[in-house]
Amino acid sequence: MEPLDDPSPQVAHPDAMRALVDALRALVASQRTADAPAEVLEQATALVREATTLLAPHEVDGIPGQNALRAAYPDRDQFATGDPAHFFPYSPVVGPLNAIAPPLVFSFDGERMRGHGKLGAPYTGPPGTVHGGVVALVLDELLGAVNACLGLGAYTGTLTIRYEQPTPIGRELTFDAGVDRTEGRKVFTVGTISADGEVTARAEGVFIRVEQPTPADRGERP
Amino acid sequence: MEPLDDPSPQVAHPDAMRALVDALRALVASQRTADAPAEVLEQATALVREATTLLAPHEVDGIPGQNALRAAYPDRDQFATGDPAHFFPYSPVVGPLNAIAPPLVFSFDGERMRGHGKLGAPYTGPPGTVHGGVVALVLDELLGAVNACLGLGAYTGTLTIRYEQPTPIGRELTFDAGVDRTEGRKVFTVGTISADGEVTARAEGVFIRVEQPTPADRGERP
Repeated sequence: MEPLDDPSPQVAHPDAMRALVDALRALVASQRTADAPAEVLEQATALVREATTLLAPHEVDGIPGQNALRAAYPDRDQFATGDPAHFFPYSPVVGPLNAIAPPLVFSFDGERMRGHGKLGAPYTGPPGTVHGGVVALVLDELLGAVNACLGLGAYTGTLTIRYEQPTPIGRELTFDAGVDRTEGRKVFTVGTISADGEVTARAEGVFIRVEQPTPADRGERP
Repeated sequence: MEPLDDPSPQVAHPDAMRALVDALRALVASQRTADAPAEVLEQATALVREATTLLAPHEVDGIPGQNALRAAYPDRDQFATGDPAHFFPYSPVVGPLNAIAPPLVFSFDGERMRGHGKLGAPYTGPPGTVHGGVVALVLDELLGAVNACLGLGAYTGTLTIRYEQPTPIGRELTFDAGVDRTEGRKVFTVGTISADGEVTARAEGVFIRVEQPTPADRGERP
């Protein structure tokens, strides 16, 4: 197994960590829509600080890359058929161990990356709609994930997002991406976000493969 | 003053809310790099759930748009010369009241939007570098903010990101954006992210102005 750039180990207690992250995600969403009395806010703040005091001594040196658990899944075949969340546990889009991730659920069928999920209050831009930059964030992850699962991992050169209509907040969305074509070292990958069966945004990414194994070749996101 | 689509009031206690969000942001970052014993994770989870139980009864109906506090700043001149964080307090990029925001600091000088800040552990993609989708998120916010401050708010049509080199995690970054040109109803806006004086990523956005006042005309992000 090729050593990873990122030597961080998988966490010792992923289930307990995941429960913490789920709880954190709920609190982040609750705060985002709350208007509470000062004393309630102060009590909540004290609880959050107490939790940080408990965790801080256990922070590891350095910052694990989003694929830190990949060490547990070194087999490319397993990677290609698996759930991207297993390989990108700290991803800000699909990572179950990252509290800023919704997290969305992506699934690779051997050719295309599909997915679904909702984007809640913290991802709001204009009222009722997903922030345009969050739309871009999700599409970048979607395109990079299908490349990685196809063994076409590469560095992102250009990402172009076309906004066709507002993407609704809090409603079930679906995602779809695949490789359109390759030209020499270039990989052209396209993807969409849809709501109620209508495309709300499209992405095309141009990715550049290099001679040396890239982080993407090892399953990391370019 | 034109009524906003989003009727949510400003929060009653912004300073106490901001302290809670700062504490939450620290906990989200600590969790992202922690590998703690199960009993520590369980204690932290219980504290976080207790905080949510305190806040949940105070959630407002609906989801405030990212500009919910704009009602306090109805004057366009005040908007144009102010700190975008005041007008987009819930933005996932610059919003002091959104725990998933770093938050970055943007400042409008009457012509250009400049900014600075660090992106920490939760925003990591490949080891040591900012997730490419987060780069796109930040650039979308930067371009939309300068348009809004110039009174050129409009719907985003297309956003193109060029990745020139990795954007480092945890290091001071600088941001710069301005309107390149307008062609009829189209506004072409460009921006960059730099580290150590070198551009790491560039964006060009094509924004479409419409006859009717858009959300962007009211200071919301397209």
